Amino acid sequence: MSPPVDLTYERFQQLNMRLDMSRGKPSPEQLDLSQALIDEAGQAGYLARDGFDCRNYGLASGLPEARELGAELLGVPGAQVIAAGNSSLELMHDALTFALLHGVPVSDGAEIGAPWRAQGEIAFLCPVPGYDRHFAICEALGVRMIAVPMREDGPDMDRVEALVRDDPSIKGMWCVPLYSNPTGAIWSDEVIRRLAAMPAAPDFRLFWDDAYRFHHLTDEVHSTLDVFEACAAASHAERALMFASLSKVTFGGGAFAWLAAAPRNVAWWQKHSAVRTIGPDKLNQLRHVRFLRDRATLTDLMARHRALLKPKFDAVDEVFRARLAAVPGVSWNAPRGGYFISLYAPEGCARRTVELAAAAGLILTPAGAAFPYGVDAQDSHLRIAPSFPALEEVRLAAEGIALSLLRAIDERRG
Amino acid sequence: MSPPVDLTYERFQQLNMRLDMSRGKPSPEQLDLSQALIDEAGQAGYLARDGFDCRNYGLASGLPEARELGAELLGVPGAQVIAAGNSSLELMHDALTFALLHGVPVSDGAEIGAPWRAQGEIAFLCPVPGYDRHFAICEALGVRMIAVPMREDGPDMDRVEALVRDDPSIKGMWCVPLYSNPTGAIWSDEVIRRLAAMPAAPDFRLFWDDAYRFHHLTDEVHSTLDVFEACAAASHAERALMFASLSKVTFGGGAFAWLAAAPRNVAWWQKHSAVRTIGPDKLNQLRHVRFLRDRATLTDLMARHRALLKPKFDAVDEVFRARLAAVPGVSWNAPRGGYFISLYAPEGCARRTVELAAAAGLILTPAGAAFPYGVDAQDSHLRIAPSFPALEEVRLAAEGIALSLLRAIDERRG
Repeated sequence: MSPPVDLTYERFQQLNMRLDMSRGKPSPEQLDLSQALIDEAGQAGYLARDGFDCRNYGLASGLPEARELGAELLGVPGAQVIAAGNSSLELMHDALTFALLHGVPVSDGAEIGAPWRAQGEIAFLCPVPGYDRHFAICEALGVRMIAVPMREDGPDMDRVEALVRDDPSIKGMWCVPLYSNPTGAIWSDEVIRRLAAMPAAPDFRLFWDDAYRFHHLTDEVHSTLDVFEACAAASHAERALMFASLSKVTFGGGAFAWLAAAPRNVAWWQKHSAVRTIGPDKLNQLRHVRFLRDRATLTDLMARHRALLKPKFDAVDEVFRARLAAVPGVSWNAPRGGYFISLYAPEGCARRTVELAAAAGLILTPAGAAFPYGVDAQDSHLRIAPSFPALEEVRLAAEGIALSLLRAIDERRG
Repeated sequence: MSPPVDLTYERFQQLNMRLDMSRGKPSPEQLDLSQALIDEAGQAGYLARDGFDCRNYGLASGLPEARELGAELLGVPGAQVIAAGNSSLELMHDALTFALLHGVPVSDGAEIGAPWRAQGEIAFLCPVPGYDRHFAICEALGVRMIAVPMREDGPDMDRVEALVRDDPSIKGMWCVPLYSNPTGAIWSDEVIRRLAAMPAAPDFRLFWDDAYRFHHLTDEVHSTLDVFEACAAASHAERALMFASLSKVTFGGGAFAWLAAAPRNVAWWQKHSAVRTIGPDKLNQLRHVRFLRDRATLTDLMARHRALLKPKFDAVDEVFRARLAAVPGVSWNAPRGGYFISLYAPEGCARRTVELAAAAGLILTPAGAAFPYGVDAQDSHLRIAPSFPALEEVRLAAEGIALSLLRAIDERRG
């Protein structure tokens, strides 16, 4: 179903689409790539390498081989990796909660800093546009958010350093270092070195959400500087907490997540999480370890994801080029990995574009979602999530987005 | 390997046992009862009843059929049940954390009470002996614990009412209403009605850990009064938060847990947990729903658990009768359900008994574990967990416990 060349917003509306593109969900075809996890679960069985019965309680820090797989994939020693439950978002939420209630290890004397909650109002730096669910955690937990501009090579470091230098109430920063959600930024070595080295509160933490570490969309396998090495080299060994998940490798919410950190941070995590956990679901960890095996197997699987995803990203780009290339004030990025395209509308047009798309049956991420408190002061940014719909739907949806945007611009011109 | 009649502590020590009886873990034979969850995972597939793809993100409150199974088994409407991750302990921990940080719904006017954290030092009532992991949560989160004596029909209600009446800093109470861990108490209708009706802080909560609801050890299927109905009848509709888990029905840490509560509490839970979750592992919920099906199927499965467990409880009882019946100051209970036997030593002998058992290679739950802060002022209570070892090991371990206790008593007599 190729869209007619003379498609207009009205005609698009008449197509009565019913499509939700608001979240970065894997498509059914991507999920099929890991079907062996379900079909061959019986073969994975329940006995770990060392004979441990994964059907029973225990192993609060995760199955050893699941921790080791994380170590291999994340480039840290196994003892510094926790293999946890089905969501890295939960790990980030809980890390922030533990810090608020109990404090975190500090490098300048005392073992553990004062609970963040006991230090008055605290704040996190939020590169924008960023990930709405990071910001929702801060908002829910009463952590003030300070927006800093995101650039192609990461956050504006002059701004970050200036903010952090003299303000010990800034306790952390959200970081998606590779293929940032939603701008696709790849953080440069210099940015990461400056983040590791900058003067900051002794209990400052980089919340390093390495969500798209394996999610390349081009032939080039991008990677970012080892944040733990950079922090250690700058004598801030405990500065980074790394989070990663297999949800977009195998099953969304049906996989497991890792936390990786310096030894003192791992001990801190273990101490506080031990109170709430009876151990993760080790059967699911075992299935995943047997299925994913090693870096080579994972790389092969991710290539098959890419083969399904890349045409969708290309389709959006093609439609936008055809419809929007010549429109003043409109731009978008061609991400080299990750799950999102950022589309920038002329000021004041994003929210109306989302409304117009919705009126045509196409649900987009709410305008402003990529900003703290949901407020995009320019009302300019749109997050496009092309992964879930079928390719032809994505193409048609891109037409709809472009036509909605053009209509919004027209309306504004009045 | 029947133990010799003339077994002494020294001879027991020479047997070089290596047995850990410290936790209430299911035995491998019990885990085998649910092996179909692993072997037939492929048949359960990934499509929910309504066609939802359980391999993908979503359903923050759980798979509808997993919530409905909970509703059937817990006796509440499905809309009041959350089907969550692999641990009810996590749900209790998080409920307490949410209450500390955000407050809970109150019945006397304001929608949500002040965060417990903002109300000064708060306290929980802890029936003792009780569950060590409940107490660990309070200790970690800085909630003061007030011990109240446990009786055969539940906590000493005169004491509970007197404490709660005039002290709004008492915000909650740990309750294991059926086959209490570790005393096996079955809470009477009157106790539950008094808990529901007693004057207390408007944001007081019963943390109703229905851990052993399905875990009968006799022909008689005991149950406790419906706490939600009792609370509603007393105009304290929001007083109870119920927690339940399938960990001891299928796999320890490999199953899923439920939270059930009145509608306003459910909405409160959903609001705060929505920030941290991307939905539970719905594939595991689906497997469980297809395997457990309904109350009748679960009842049948639990009968098979009982057939494996009951002889172990009987073996402990037989050995204790033979060795300890005539010993002054020693008593124990014959639980009608649950996972534990409480053995009461003469004052000052429990800790030494655990030491002597450990010296013979038999790891027991640490003395004092069943008390807030790990302190049993009488040093009298021992928790016996006979579920995990094989029957003959249990019998021998019971001999070892009895001999260790007798030796401890002898030593104390000097």
